[in-house]
Amino acid sequence: MSDNCLKSTIQAYQLRNNAQLTHWIESLEHADHPLVLAMKHGALLGGKRVRPFLTYVTGQMFGANEHELDTPAAAVECIHAYSLIHDDLPAMDDDALRRGQPTCHVAFDEATAILAGDALQTLAFTILADGDLSPAGNAYRIHMVRELASASGAQGMCLGQAMDLAAEGQHVDLQTLETIHRNKTGALIRCAVRLGAFAAGEKGVEWLPQLDKFANAIGLAFQVQDDILDIISDTETLGKPQGSDIAADKSTYPALLGLEGAKEKAELLYKEALHALDTIPYNTEQLEQFARYIIERNN
Amino acid sequence: MSDNCLKSTIQAYQLRNNAQLTHWIESLEHADHPLVLAMKHGALLGGKRVRPFLTYVTGQMFGANEHELDTPAAAVECIHAYSLIHDDLPAMDDDALRRGQPTCHVAFDEATAILAGDALQTLAFTILADGDLSPAGNAYRIHMVRELASASGAQGMCLGQAMDLAAEGQHVDLQTLETIHRNKTGALIRCAVRLGAFAAGEKGVEWLPQLDKFANAIGLAFQVQDDILDIISDTETLGKPQGSDIAADKSTYPALLGLEGAKEKAELLYKEALHALDTIPYNTEQLEQFARYIIERNN
Repeated sequence: MSDNCLKSTIQAYQLRNNAQLTHWIESLEHADHPLVLAMKHGALLGGKRVRPFLTYVTGQMFGANEHELDTPAAAVECIHAYSLIHDDLPAMDDDALRRGQPTCHVAFDEATAILAGDALQTLAFTILADGDLSPAGNAYRIHMVRELASASGAQGMCLGQAMDLAAEGQHVDLQTLETIHRNKTGALIRCAVRLGAFAAGEKGVEWLPQLDKFANAIGLAFQVQDDILDIISDTETLGKPQGSDIAADKSTYPALLGLEGAKEKAELLYKEALHALDTIPYNTEQLEQFARYIIERNN
Repeated sequence: MSDNCLKSTIQAYQLRNNAQLTHWIESLEHADHPLVLAMKHGALLGGKRVRPFLTYVTGQMFGANEHELDTPAAAVECIHAYSLIHDDLPAMDDDALRRGQPTCHVAFDEATAILAGDALQTLAFTILADGDLSPAGNAYRIHMVRELASASGAQGMCLGQAMDLAAEGQHVDLQTLETIHRNKTGALIRCAVRLGAFAAGEKGVEWLPQLDKFANAIGLAFQVQDDILDIISDTETLGKPQGSDIAADKSTYPALLGLEGAKEKAELLYKEALHALDTIPYNTEQLEQFARYIIERNN
């Protein structure tokens, strides 16, 4: 598959995921309430849709069709969207700009942003409980709930964000930095891959250990590349202020390893990701291409 | 059953629910992290445990035993606890005192309180996905997830809180006030009752329409009594500042109906609740007693 082909696949899933999120949010009874408009603002204003992409591509690799993957893809993106709304709050990262747009608490207000994040988290579980699945995937519906909760809460994403905030202004070592990111972003990325496998049923579940290794590697690579981009990119391309890590005195891979060292680390993780896919007897091409994209993207 | 008997039953379920919440929170991998300590602070510092009580009593009425009801009772209380942490935040109600103790963001900090609330919401779904249920209840596990999500999010509790904040300083009419409370507190109270029925399996599910009527009546009665107590009680008994509704310029039942009118409304809702239980051919005595307690409690 060519790079262009990957990009159009990414875009197709972005659109598909956006349509799904729009459907779920607009189906809410009070769709014109500021709370729901704030949820929509947080969930639908751009975004790469890395997690839904991983869910779609993983599930399809095991034979599930797109329609059978809409449910977990939408659920995992709701969790990601809620986490961004809360991370941007004044008490957290205090960011006014996200994806080139005013953040939720700027566009609405703080209380609405807190509640919109809360309700997007809830919506993720509504989607998993209510959304369509294939019969093979339906057998794993409650596993998906468990998986998403496990990746999102005090043993995953929320813990990672708390660790990240605590590390601000501290000069943490490489191991601590890795622990932060494995929780803050890695857990949900692994979850996205796993949800794709669950939605494909037995066939996918069999390969969870290999998929975990793949996801752990690209999850960390994603963060390393994020840190690199914060240094080498510009605000317009990023859609958020360039240099914000340095401004917030955050520990980053380039800070600990140097820019070249960070690039080497990303390359190493890419190879780890490919290696993890070696034994999977399905067409892993899209996942391989995506791993490459992760460490080569410029925003 | 005497009043004393009801009180000791309430207390027994409080202790049981606290033990369950302690178990779930302390089982988290990083149980000594400030995030987890903040979750514990928010979930375990007192509280009447109205929702768990309703889950236990409803489920037992249909023949489930306590152990088979621990899971939904703990899950629903996690949602309630998270909502209190977020409602108390400076951007929301800005309360420094809750249950006679410093609120979560005062005891810790705002960022930690936001994340602790987030993670308690997630924990509710982990508990529903992972916790023990009877075989009869297990058949309704995914219904419980759907139910809890539906009651908590943008069609229930979060919507109610957003409506409540929007109504501050406005003089809303009785119908609007009722809509606010049916969402803000009513939805989760009804959910607590429903979860008890689900956990008992078919036997309980059959009576959901009657249980909904009961729960809707006591849910609203609970709020009417809260509004009354804000006027007639004192700060020490309440565990929060007396008169805080007036200070926040909130619309209340006494403000719209007068104190006597509000008391009559509570009494009317009590009768509605009893009437709803009439046709249920099980021992509804504990639910009846509890309805009485709701409108007679002094904190």
